[in-house]
Amino acid sequence: MDGSKKTQDLVRLAQTKSPAPEINIAGLPLFEAGHVWLAGVGPGDVGLLTLHAVNALQQADMIVYDALVSEDILALAKKGAQLFYAGKRGGKPSRNQADITEQLIALAQAGHRVLRLKGGDPFLFGRGGEEAQALREAEITFRIIPGISAGIGGLAYAGIPVTHRDINHAVTFVTGHLAGDNRPELMDWTAIAQGSPVIVIYMALHRLAVIAALLLKAGRDKEEPLAVVTHATTPAQKVVFSTLGEAAGEAASLVATHKLEPPAIIVVGKVVDMGRLINWI
Amino acid sequence: MDGSKKTQDLVRLAQTKSPAPEINIAGLPLFEAGHVWLAGVGPGDVGLLTLHAVNALQQADMIVYDALVSEDILALAKKGAQLFYAGKRGGKPSRNQADITEQLIALAQAGHRVLRLKGGDPFLFGRGGEEAQALREAEITFRIIPGISAGIGGLAYAGIPVTHRDINHAVTFVTGHLAGDNRPELMDWTAIAQGSPVIVIYMALHRLAVIAALLLKAGRDKEEPLAVVTHATTPAQKVVFSTLGEAAGEAASLVATHKLEPPAIIVVGKVVDMGRLINWI
Repeated sequence: MDGSKKTQDLVRLAQTKSPAPEINIAGLPLFEAGHVWLAGVGPGDVGLLTLHAVNALQQADMIVYDALVSEDILALAKKGAQLFYAGKRGGKPSRNQADITEQLIALAQAGHRVLRLKGGDPFLFGRGGEEAQALREAEITFRIIPGISAGIGGLAYAGIPVTHRDINHAVTFVTGHLAGDNRPELMDWTAIAQGSPVIVIYMALHRLAVIAALLLKAGRDKEEPLAVVTHATTPAQKVVFSTLGEAAGEAASLVATHKLEPPAIIVVGKVVDMGRLINWI
Repeated sequence: MDGSKKTQDLVRLAQTKSPAPEINIAGLPLFEAGHVWLAGVGPGDVGLLTLHAVNALQQADMIVYDALVSEDILALAKKGAQLFYAGKRGGKPSRNQADITEQLIALAQAGHRVLRLKGGDPFLFGRGGEEAQALREAEITFRIIPGISAGIGGLAYAGIPVTHRDINHAVTFVTGHLAGDNRPELMDWTAIAQGSPVIVIYMALHRLAVIAALLLKAGRDKEEPLAVVTHATTPAQKVVFSTLGEAAGEAASLVATHKLEPPAIIVVGKVVDMGRLINWI
């Protein structure tokens, strides 16, 4: 139970520009004691929180959150809520999944309203399915609150639509962290390369060269446009346009030149060219 | 400019259960006159609106909305906002895309704050890319507001995670409305079938038999679990579990027996079995 700390009252967000409307969210569900809610908070921008996520933050007693959940988002928690960090800390490895689900179950069994917060969406590479399974087995009542996933909403902030009627009617989302681990039963990169005109890759920054090489080997074109978007939707967002061939040959140099750091989304396919046109930020 | 009507004041939502917290959304962007915002409103549940979408509704003068945007969501518009319907009406075909973009441009050029509302996400099968392109060409300033897509968030309300660590590390999203149209340059169903262990198909209810047959022909297993989720996240949500083989042979009977109607999301793959376990509603 590391990382607990006091939260602030509901605060005004950083840059006050709007006419400060207030949203009455009566009608959203009551968070009952002993329940767990698993919520995605989106890629970073507080404005991409759903009303359900805010409703959850304002009622939860105990909040177990991941590394990608920002201070701005945690600041929306109700006064007195206790916060528990479940991500990497100071170079130490992440807490393991069993430990986290055990904590969720124990807090719920102790009668708390327990909110599990994850970056992005809990059911798209978020391991929410595993946590829901464990809660079901422990007979804890839970709710799933979807979030905006970085591979769609984050790319939108780079002006890149994951589909465009003139370009593609299919898009594949894939995790990059297994690339190179030789686990063909989990990841068939040839099939992925051939499956969709557009491929969106999560958790791939440090495997960019390997992944680009796998896609080229499977027949994708070296001139195909590729973009890397880091810290999507936040003030630190960076968008780097490249090609599959360049990424395969010079990924390390790309990363170093642009000082790219995770979290990153990589997108391959002709929709990337739309980003130069649509770029709206 | 059909379909204009008065909107109500910000109303309390239907089922008042929660302790009625209010969210101060100061800090979200000011909607400037002459700008267009393209926003996704998610699959239906008002609680899945983002803060940005609510902020947009509360400032927009003119709102151009699609069929999947509900009355509950439109009720959040500011007093006096004018609403324009851009979907199908009484059996008449949808307004065409050129007509809609022309209207967005004309309203913006007349100095209005123009909000374009779409179901789901504007950049995943939402044609938001085309509208953004047209706005850019007309030199109108715009903003993209991502939304929760039914193929992720809607399936979550059926308890189905689109990825699960023990099952898949890739998922393909595809539109079904072209299946059977013999447009291989747009849709290679064999590649899609082989590309990812999990396939999520939008706009496919009336092509279910054709699509299931295409996937079987490409080598998918007839015992593979398949689910159809209609009206996801709304009180009318239905979830029907089946198999690829049954869908190929008896789609019409499935649709008739369960009285299934669009909008529907179809999901194929082993994650479907999780829905029976995780089912939390």
